[in-house]
Amino acid sequence: MNFASDNTAGISPEILAAIADANEGAAASYGADPITARLEAKLAEIFEHEVAVFPVATGTAANALALAAVTPPWGAVLCHPLAHITCDEANAPEFYTGGAKLVSVPGADGKLVADDLAALLPGDLGNVHHAQPAAVSLTQATECGTVYRPAEIAAIADVAHRHGLAVHMDGARFANAMVHLDASPAELTWRAGVDVLSLGATKNGALGAEAIVFFDVQRGRELAFRRKRAGHLFSKMRFLSAQLDAYVTNDLWRRNARHANAAATQLAGGLSVLPGVSLRHPVEANELFVEMPEAMIVGLFAAGGQFYRWQGAASTCVRLVTAWNTAASDVATFVDAASRLAAH
Amino acid sequence: MNFASDNTAGISPEILAAIADANEGAAASYGADPITARLEAKLAEIFEHEVAVFPVATGTAANALALAAVTPPWGAVLCHPLAHITCDEANAPEFYTGGAKLVSVPGADGKLVADDLAALLPGDLGNVHHAQPAAVSLTQATECGTVYRPAEIAAIADVAHRHGLAVHMDGARFANAMVHLDASPAELTWRAGVDVLSLGATKNGALGAEAIVFFDVQRGRELAFRRKRAGHLFSKMRFLSAQLDAYVTNDLWRRNARHANAAATQLAGGLSVLPGVSLRHPVEANELFVEMPEAMIVGLFAAGGQFYRWQGAASTCVRLVTAWNTAASDVATFVDAASRLAAH
Amino acid sequence: MNFASDNTAGISPEILAAIADANEGAAASYGADPITARLEAKLAEIFEHEVAVFPVATGTAANALALAAVTPPWGAVLCHPLAHITCDEANAPEFYTGGAKLVSVPGADGKLVADDLAALLPGDLGNVHHAQPAAVSLTQATECGTVYRPAEIAAIADVAHRHGLAVHMDGARFANAMVHLDASPAELTWRAGVDVLSLGATKNGALGAEAIVFFDVQRGRELAFRRKRAGHLFSKMRFLSAQLDAYVTNDLWRRNARHANAAATQLAGGLSVLPGVSLRHPVEANELFVEMPEAMIVGLFAAGGQFYRWQGAASTCVRLVTAWNTAASDVATFVDAASRLAAH
Amino acid sequence: MNFASDNTAGISPEILAAIADANEGAAASYGADPITARLEAKLAEIFEHEVAVFPVATGTAANALALAAVTPPWGAVLCHPLAHITCDEANAPEFYTGGAKLVSVPGADGKLVADDLAALLPGDLGNVHHAQPAAVSLTQATECGTVYRPAEIAAIADVAHRHGLAVHMDGARFANAMVHLDASPAELTWRAGVDVLSLGATKNGALGAEAIVFFDVQRGRELAFRRKRAGHLFSKMRFLSAQLDAYVTNDLWRRNARHANAAATQLAGGLSVLPGVSLRHPVEANELFVEMPEAMIVGLFAAGGQFYRWQGAASTCVRLVTAWNTAASDVATFVDAASRLAAH
Repeated sequence: MNFASDNTAGISPEILAAIADANEGAAASYGADPITARLEAKLAEIFEHEVAVFPVATGTAANALALAAVTPPWGAVLCHPLAHITCDEANAPEFYTGGAKLVSVPGADGKLVADDLAALLPGDLGNVHHAQPAAVSLTQATECGTVYRPAEIAAIADVAHRHGLAVHMDGARFANAMVHLDASPAELTWRAGVDVLSLGATKNGALGAEAIVFFDVQRGRELAFRRKRAGHLFSKMRFLSAQLDAYVTNDLWRRNARHANAAATQLAGGLSVLPGVSLRHPVEANELFVEMPEAMIVGLFAAGGQFYRWQGAASTCVRLVTAWNTAASDVATFVDAASRLAAH
Repeated sequence: MNFASDNTAGISPEILAAIADANEGAAASYGADPITARLEAKLAEIFEHEVAVFPVATGTAANALALAAVTPPWGAVLCHPLAHITCDEANAPEFYTGGAKLVSVPGADGKLVADDLAALLPGDLGNVHHAQPAAVSLTQATECGTVYRPAEIAAIADVAHRHGLAVHMDGARFANAMVHLDASPAELTWRAGVDVLSLGATKNGALGAEAIVFFDVQRGRELAFRRKRAGHLFSKMRFLSAQLDAYVTNDLWRRNARHANAAATQLAGGLSVLPGVSLRHPVEANELFVEMPEAMIVGLFAAGGQFYRWQGAASTCVRLVTAWNTAASDVATFVDAASRLAAH
Repeated sequence: MNFASDNTAGISPEILAAIADANEGAAASYGADPITARLEAKLAEIFEHEVAVFPVATGTAANALALAAVTPPWGAVLCHPLAHITCDEANAPEFYTGGAKLVSVPGADGKLVADDLAALLPGDLGNVHHAQPAAVSLTQATECGTVYRPAEIAAIADVAHRHGLAVHMDGARFANAMVHLDASPAELTWRAGVDVLSLGATKNGALGAEAIVFFDVQRGRELAFRRKRAGHLFSKMRFLSAQLDAYVTNDLWRRNARHANAAATQLAGGLSVLPGVSLRHPVEANELFVEMPEAMIVGLFAAGGQFYRWQGAASTCVRLVTAWNTAASDVATFVDAASRLAAH
Repeated sequence: MNFASDNTAGISPEILAAIADANEGAAASYGADPITARLEAKLAEIFEHEVAVFPVATGTAANALALAAVTPPWGAVLCHPLAHITCDEANAPEFYTGGAKLVSVPGADGKLVADDLAALLPGDLGNVHHAQPAAVSLTQATECGTVYRPAEIAAIADVAHRHGLAVHMDGARFANAMVHLDASPAELTWRAGVDVLSLGATKNGALGAEAIVFFDVQRGRELAFRRKRAGHLFSKMRFLSAQLDAYVTNDLWRRNARHANAAATQLAGGLSVLPGVSLRHPVEANELFVEMPEAMIVGLFAAGGQFYRWQGAASTCVRLVTAWNTAASDVATFVDAASRLAAH
């Protein structure tokens, strides 16, 4: 019953097989191999747009490099106060941008709201004493397990672009959002105004693979240099590209995400009806934030449940994360245990 | 006949199997898994010394993080002018250290010489106008395919330590050096005065795995923060650790390195006897630098040989690199082709 | 009627004279001159403590260098959301620290509150995913024109030190706070737990001179390197040191600050009794934040008043700043104009 | 007899008077004052070209900011191995550029040679593994006391521009070069292809004032942000601008430079005829590098001469620097002392 994180799950069999397949023979290094070339072509087709694609191995690298490409050192990135980039990356965006500032813009359910951004801008733009707003970063699905609708993204992007800011999407759980909305990759990105996407695969079945996807190819021109000087250019790049290639082939990303989302929905359904239990946010992806009685939390830990209290050791809100391979039996066992604890 | 680089070779079967084995079940993320714990213990045993181990995925990351741990932003790293850190990492050490300077100290066959360092130090130490020498970095095996003897390392380390400098070893081809000398890991590192080692596995059979190994555990205390903020902390760390674990298990690193070195020796033997052909450096690891007639270079390319001219499109020195899986038949075919071309 | 800022005022005559005096003959450069030596001795006496003193020319440099000395790149500086370091320095602290984060801790009247800090700490200390709280920075006098009492500073410092954080004081208006409290320099700094002080002189009569003052001399050991590599080491240092020396000689800093504070008090007294006018914060130094009717603001601008609306072009709160040389007649004229406008 | 450096000299009376004059009344801060506006207009006239001017207080700041404006973090700056930016700024260019590399290109008498640059370029341009040459920096007058002719600059700039590199001139002693050549400011800068100039005044009579001068105004667009976030934007900017304004008014810069150059010529003439004494470089500005017998060096120190041995405590080459106010009697006394020592 491991609901600690989707990154405690292993590698999807199709992706592991793709790594093994890619291991045939020698291949040009540093991305000059055919798998990497094929990946960029495939993503262009899937996203229905010219793209510049840069595979890296971690989500933090993808986010920090993407943000650095659109934010000068004296810039500011507007993001939700719960955003991974500001909470969980140990100042990686500050490092990669050369010292930019992350500015929090609160919003319900982990979402930025276009009107709130509009109220802030142009703000200090042009005033040399202040950090210059340069980018908006939104997380899809959000850190609260909710999902931005295309219209919400478009409204945010519209405000951003009107003031010259770029729009970055942290898509660590992009596929989970996509299947929830039954939207196309294009609808959730460039059609809604996203300029650069961190397309995550690691949490949804890869060993360690994320793609930085620029829809404005020119804007990504320098990324190759940034990636190399950060030590994120793999010599055996084919193995990153093979993961990503398998990920978007035969709908694997959608299948894995649907599995995880369904498990989350099943958990939510089973828990939310229990007395004293409530969901803090709508469950739209593969994360649940559940308020529950302290005794239930303690009991679930005792029953072997693996999960975290959300923001603090004394919190009675727990986070449950499902994965591409979460067993239905684990969900059922967990809900049963909670039910028994509720009945006490 | 791919002698372009050892990073064009794929994954050693034992390492691929280890990745698959590590894929069983869930595992705690970010290095809290049992494989990572086991790896550190195993390396401590192998190196016969307490160690702090930080797996990362690329050699550039390993070098840049290790150097940043021992060099302040106003510092200087003394290294050979051909060192990978100064030639081939696109300013990664400068990025990670926050702006330190790499100072070249020339030496024959890619090696730093203790006396040359001694002549430079203390130099500007303490003078606020100048970069402060903070570390010496040596590459084992060197960029010229030669190997430092333990006594050479010890002499360099002695000079460094006398002046308060740390000693870093870029061990991208550490195993190749080790088997050439038939020396123990300890003899080539802490016993000779090395403070921190970038232990490479990628070039010698891994998918992408290197270990930063601190022999002074205290000195590595901050590395965990540095690695995370650089985006080099893998969420599914077990798959990096599994590669490294397999790499040092059952002598795989030595077996792979012996294979590569033997192929290089075979190539050297076959080529060096040809008229107009000479070796620029002794062949002590898995790289050859071969002066040859222009017609031979052109002919070898035409015959399907893959390799690079060394430092410039007009150079008549070529670099040949062998790998853990270089086929003896490829070596033979290459030597034969060269022989025929020499006979013209 | 210039109340725009205390930095629109010129140089105090005593300080200009000191620059001229220092111009006699040649002097060793980069701080090896006798005036710089004398300054450090004098500040040690005034602060009743061993100090390491580093003169620089701007407040932003003083703050950013001081913070960099006590905060690693993966660190966080806790400060008030109105702090100059986070609002008005265009990411200088992020630049100098190599990418640390400034974390806002709100509090009434521009002040941090010890209990709020205690509630945050230890927080994420030790967790590699999060910025590591490394310093608390407080501004004396605050950005709201209020003043920390020694006991307030001591309570904050106590929390900070208990968790290993350093305490930095941005003393851009240190003298204004000192004379308001009639406290000694020691009482407001090291005796209350301050580790490093940015001692401002520019706003209070210097051409451009601030001293970074370390009470823990060891902690400042690297500052000389940091200052030089930032381009803040003056070759003709004697002229910075002469300004600071004159500033703390014959009580000039106190006299100038008393003058400015008195003018602020006079302004506050005259304005606060007018209908529709209120003070947003207590007036304890040389800044007033005054809510007033829009018509009064417009009228005062029309009458030649120079000042800023506070945080936004539509704001009906204005900031008035007095200086070491504010003319009593300007204050009277301004109050008279406001009175007439109030009477309409 | 202080020939230690031109920065041991004080402030030129005209410049000190200008500071005092600028002290009348209040003035808008941060460069919005009329003196700063006037300075930019005056420099445009003097340089016969549209310019963007950014006053700062130190030469290191001017150089590091200017280089950062034209060099990305993954870039390289080509410069002479003796250049101040690489030898004497404690990694400031690396800091300000975010980690660029300074690449030494040797040349006689402290000068870069166009053909040597041409041989290096395009070099690694476009190859992601290597630092990308982005700028050439030349020092006028050089660190050897020699002076680039306009044609030499133009040849260098031509190579640079052909490959997309910017041309920076470190003009710490620009006036000394200008008067030696009797050339116009335009001839030595934009007409010869210089894109950005660090125009020094400090060594030639200012308290501390340098101007970053962009001839391509667009290229300087971001400098205002860079300067502020580095803490180099003076609140009381008028006092920097007043120094620079006085410096270029009534030919002061030329008069001061002529005085210093003449003193150097006089020294060179007197010393070079002595037995055992020789000049290492032509004397074209205000610096001499003089090989002399050890006994003469010791004797001159004993006689009260202040100067440095050049590059090392054991060197028998000494550097003598004259200044805007070097007394003819000091030169005569020094030469006399040397003559007597030579006669022994």
